[in-house]
Amino acid sequence: MNPAVSTLRAILNPRSVAVIGASGDPAKFGGRVMHFLVKHGYRGRIVPVHPTAAEVLGIPAVSKLSAAGDPVDVCILALPAAHLPAALEDCGRAGARGAVVITADFAETGAAGAARQDELLQIARRHGMRLIGPNCLGYINPQLQLALTSSVALAVEPMPRGAIGLASQSGSLMASLISHAQDLGTGFSVAATVGNQADVELCDLVEYFIDDDITRAICLYIEGLKNGARFLELAQRARAAGKPILAVKAGRSAAGQQVTQSHTASLAGSYAVWEAACRDHAVCLLDDPEALIYCADFLIRFGAPAASTIAVMSPSGGTVAVTGDRVVAAGLALAKPGLATAAELQKLLPPGRTINPLDVGGLPRASGLDSTLTAYELLAKDPAVGAILIAVATTPQLEDKVRQWGRAALAGKKPTAILLTPGTLVDGARNALKEIACPYTNRLDDTLRVLRAAVDYGKALRNPSPPASHSSFSAAVRAHAASLPDGRLTEPEAKALLRAGGIHTTNDVVAPTPDAAIQQAQRIGYPVVLKGVCRDLVHKSEAGAVKLNIADTDALRTAWREIETGLAAHLPGATLAGCVVQPMLRDGIELIVGCRWDAQFGPVVIIGSGGVLVEILSDVQMAVAPISPAHAQRLITRLRIAPVLAGARGRPAADIGALADSIAKLSALAAALGPRLTELDINPLLVLETGAGVIALDARATLAASTA
Amino acid sequence: MNPAVSTLRAILNPRSVAVIGASGDPAKFGGRVMHFLVKHGYRGRIVPVHPTAAEVLGIPAVSKLSAAGDPVDVCILALPAAHLPAALEDCGRAGARGAVVITADFAETGAAGAARQDELLQIARRHGMRLIGPNCLGYINPQLQLALTSSVALAVEPMPRGAIGLASQSGSLMASLISHAQDLGTGFSVAATVGNQADVELCDLVEYFIDDDITRAICLYIEGLKNGARFLELAQRARAAGKPILAVKAGRSAAGQQVTQSHTASLAGSYAVWEAACRDHAVCLLDDPEALIYCADFLIRFGAPAASTIAVMSPSGGTVAVTGDRVVAAGLALAKPGLATAAELQKLLPPGRTINPLDVGGLPRASGLDSTLTAYELLAKDPAVGAILIAVATTPQLEDKVRQWGRAALAGKKPTAILLTPGTLVDGARNALKEIACPYTNRLDDTLRVLRAAVDYGKALRNPSPPASHSSFSAAVRAHAASLPDGRLTEPEAKALLRAGGIHTTNDVVAPTPDAAIQQAQRIGYPVVLKGVCRDLVHKSEAGAVKLNIADTDALRTAWREIETGLAAHLPGATLAGCVVQPMLRDGIELIVGCRWDAQFGPVVIIGSGGVLVEILSDVQMAVAPISPAHAQRLITRLRIAPVLAGARGRPAADIGALADSIAKLSALAAALGPRLTELDINPLLVLETGAGVIALDARATLAASTA
Repeated sequence: MNPAVSTLRAILNPRSVAVIGASGDPAKFGGRVMHFLVKHGYRGRIVPVHPTAAEVLGIPAVSKLSAAGDPVDVCILALPAAHLPAALEDCGRAGARGAVVITADFAETGAAGAARQDELLQIARRHGMRLIGPNCLGYINPQLQLALTSSVALAVEPMPRGAIGLASQSGSLMASLISHAQDLGTGFSVAATVGNQADVELCDLVEYFIDDDITRAICLYIEGLKNGARFLELAQRARAAGKPILAVKAGRSAAGQQVTQSHTASLAGSYAVWEAACRDHAVCLLDDPEALIYCADFLIRFGAPAASTIAVMSPSGGTVAVTGDRVVAAGLALAKPGLATAAELQKLLPPGRTINPLDVGGLPRASGLDSTLTAYELLAKDPAVGAILIAVATTPQLEDKVRQWGRAALAGKKPTAILLTPGTLVDGARNALKEIACPYTNRLDDTLRVLRAAVDYGKALRNPSPPASHSSFSAAVRAHAASLPDGRLTEPEAKALLRAGGIHTTNDVVAPTPDAAIQQAQRIGYPVVLKGVCRDLVHKSEAGAVKLNIADTDALRTAWREIETGLAAHLPGATLAGCVVQPMLRDGIELIVGCRWDAQFGPVVIIGSGGVLVEILSDVQMAVAPISPAHAQRLITRLRIAPVLAGARGRPAADIGALADSIAKLSALAAALGPRLTELDINPLLVLETGAGVIALDARATLAASTA
Repeated sequence: MNPAVSTLRAILNPRSVAVIGASGDPAKFGGRVMHFLVKHGYRGRIVPVHPTAAEVLGIPAVSKLSAAGDPVDVCILALPAAHLPAALEDCGRAGARGAVVITADFAETGAAGAARQDELLQIARRHGMRLIGPNCLGYINPQLQLALTSSVALAVEPMPRGAIGLASQSGSLMASLISHAQDLGTGFSVAATVGNQADVELCDLVEYFIDDDITRAICLYIEGLKNGARFLELAQRARAAGKPILAVKAGRSAAGQQVTQSHTASLAGSYAVWEAACRDHAVCLLDDPEALIYCADFLIRFGAPAASTIAVMSPSGGTVAVTGDRVVAAGLALAKPGLATAAELQKLLPPGRTINPLDVGGLPRASGLDSTLTAYELLAKDPAVGAILIAVATTPQLEDKVRQWGRAALAGKKPTAILLTPGTLVDGARNALKEIACPYTNRLDDTLRVLRAAVDYGKALRNPSPPASHSSFSAAVRAHAASLPDGRLTEPEAKALLRAGGIHTTNDVVAPTPDAAIQQAQRIGYPVVLKGVCRDLVHKSEAGAVKLNIADTDALRTAWREIETGLAAHLPGATLAGCVVQPMLRDGIELIVGCRWDAQFGPVVIIGSGGVLVEILSDVQMAVAPISPAHAQRLITRLRIAPVLAGARGRPAADIGALADSIAKLSALAAALGPRLTELDINPLLVLETGAGVIALDARATLAASTA
């Protein structure tokens, strides 16, 4: 085990805790912490630290931790910021292994706060202490009945104990999740907040949960990661360990990104990259924090479905109709039960009813209970059914029916999501399910999230793990890039870089004069394209610096003059380095293929529809680089333009093999250059017919200053 | 008032009720009905009808209703189907004004059931009785403490009384909504189920609710309407009366459509047409039944927002970030508070925080309560803010804060959606809101539905009502259609019909021979298009019957031969009536424009992207016909291809005026022909540059047998 993780293990499972700023007053932070420690029955040693009091809540207090004798495993500090450094210093001297800092107003409020935070970090490092926070709400370890937090969620007993490991950058979201776990009858191995992640970060907790025997699913609320690559490595380990990771990531919108900065000083990173990275690494990315609990509980109980299809069953015809509609609208597939299953079901049903979704209302009264159970069991044993959604509406003998369905689900282990649509009216049924520890949901939105997450997790497990792909061009690419200037590259420079990476481009040579261009055009053959070359020009088309379909020498001279005039008007004072002459190519499909350096995950490769489609639809797929050609092919398949590439309606199929190969090579180029390559776009990459390959018709790139 | 509605009013507000099949046993339908009648304290006359018992639950019983003396207003029947006709006959003879039939196994199970249902309807009609059901669960009128239903939802007291009028085709969905209304502290004027709608249908209840003084919002669960046009007329009346209609429509998916048929014998109709009709008639179409209650309660309390922008506020930074993201993802706009508001807010906040979404956590402790209230009031008084979303997380003094926010919201009438994210942990806050009758939601999904519905309703109210548009071509169109054969039209026939409706097409004349075609081509000028004409040929392109870009006489002769050969291979035995010759037009944007006869709403006009885009994206807009050119222009604006039509990136703008005019004319044509015109597609309609108009390049149509 990573030694940093074994220290964290000691801190999260402490034999002794100290409360710096302990108080008997529950209106104060240090008072709530003391009350919760005592109330929930933590059986380790508790050391209240208070400047003057002899005891707090009947427990003998000390004036400083260093006066307490044996070192404690962890201390929690909820003091005004000004008193923190000295108190932390004292904790360090007393030999504490870790410190939890609740106090806010650090990096999240700006540069001065960041400096104060760094001071705390240096103190902790000097003493070999791990630091949780600042600006966090501590953690709970229900296995030890330990509440080391000031969160008012702990006012309720008992602490929800279970197999979910939770790490959150938000204290009050942890509180909400604790409440939902209580309501649902599930709970946590450990639930921890990390606040500003000055030292202990989300990934440390993920690593702890992977190694922890009690934890069976890992839930994360993330504002920003300190190290995206580490997260993806841990995701691979969690996958191998059979522990699903479920995450909510804030900062999907610009507004949300701004909030993460001021809340926990986190850079949010691009949400689209998050989505791609999570999908490729079997991480369930959810949009709703509370749903983390529903989804984790379901996966712990049932595992991932073996098939991606859903059977819907309800004793209410209306609910069956609406639920069937919503399953389809959520992009989930309705199962097609086998003929034998359908025949058996039909024996139970009045004429005319559908098999899936299945209305089991009003079955013959004498055998009503048995028939609905039989129907469930018929669906459950059908391998064409991946998971079952039971939408429970009011019906006579409701609690008995629900208990029977729940027992059968738990016994058969066919993943079964039970939805209780009415409100408190059916709390009896809720309690019946809680008694047998069967998960359920109260709103169809959450039921669909559970099924979506379970199906996607199952699919991801059936896909191979992303392999590290290697490129024989890496050395050439690095050597080539070393010779390039920082900042924006010209089109010929960007294309030369691409060729160093093994990607086919037009082989442009800058013609310094119209005569040189005419010579090139004659070699290539008319019609040609003429483009101005100028380092400072970002959008060539808008400056009129791209002239298509030039038919002859006269037209070329005219085009050259127009490019000069256009550049002078668009960018006064800029110098035209010359023009490139390219063949006029038409027959192919235009894509945009590029790469970016992402703040969270590093190199990212992006593909999308080009041409006029860019204005109409957002048809983009991406992945953390490098990727294999097979992975690139999966990205291509997910594009909306995929049917056109595949040759819809009798048109020739495009060279998808060559396209996938080029995307993989570009991803390797991006990985090889690392942060030096800020961004690169091939626009368009022309994809020709099968066998004819691809060709980069235009490209631009920006290199960061080489600091290595 | 419509006399049918005044009878319905008497039935829904009865002075006396009879229970046919009354029983003291709550396990039986007639027993539950009796128990609920007594338990909820209905103060009218109750007449139990039982073949032998002298009394039921202490109330004197009669053996048949006709022996009961004074006629009752309504009787409820829960008898085996075989006994129903005689019992209903007796109710009619006894002078009952209405009958509620709970019993199932009628039209929803097939033709035999439909015949049994028709028998009941004939009995009711003969006696001038209105019939509710069969296959329904009755209704409740909480104003009268009347529960005339066997739904187990009525086991809970008190019956939720309020201003929501509910009509449902599903009994158990009504039960779930009753439960949610109870939990939320809101309720119903009347909540009724209509089952198979043999007589009383959803629209009768809508009309009742529009005229009812207590009802302030109308909620509908719909499987299928009996008369779509009546529904849209009533929607106009409800709009004028200031009563929002909120509806959930089952049958969005093929699976859901099949269920509606077997559940209440309803034809679902096209969901896309539903969406278009509801949007144009200010009906809030929701995807979730329970959300009907949340949305109706909100609109009753606050009305529609005056602006479509949302301000988000929470005492939890994490919740603020996630909620901001979700508001944006839901397609709602975040408000931009004015400078004065922002300046005032900034005085309350620590440095670095955003104004919207707004984190009001950890404001200075002494004035904490006041600061969060001040923040709310600053947002509420800003006219740039349409509605406020308060996402409540755990925080000290939670109940006090929530009560303050709720009071301020109700006092200021700025629409405010309060979300309580934790579970039962914050039931104290829920009760605080219930005490002051302030609506709230428990899941962000529902909060967003509420805001979406309120914003969309507000927008719809600000749009003009759909005017009836008239076409001067109607008579010409009808006359022309009378001369056309039933079934599939040829391309020239379809185009001639379009021209009769005032729509510009290529003016094709069928050339019976290659020589005739060559003459036409010479008149038009090469290159031309040659298309085979054959009534039985549906997909011309697939049969090779469309030849583009024909350059000269030789090529035309070759093309003609290929069309003959292709047709023979594709459709052996079919006769080629000849070919049409058309100019080869390229410069324009291809759309598909068509119309359909919809089972629910009649004539519908549809527009969408044409050409290669059809395979990539579903870019379709529609409306119930006829529509005005201005309405057609709104449809065009909603197309994804709209920016291309408007002339993106320096390309010439398309003739949107002519396009809108042609769409309106096609909609008038569809309305004029009614059910005779099963479907018509112009594919493509070529939209030329501004001023150059549009031209139908190809068309097909199917006419139904003229039964008029």
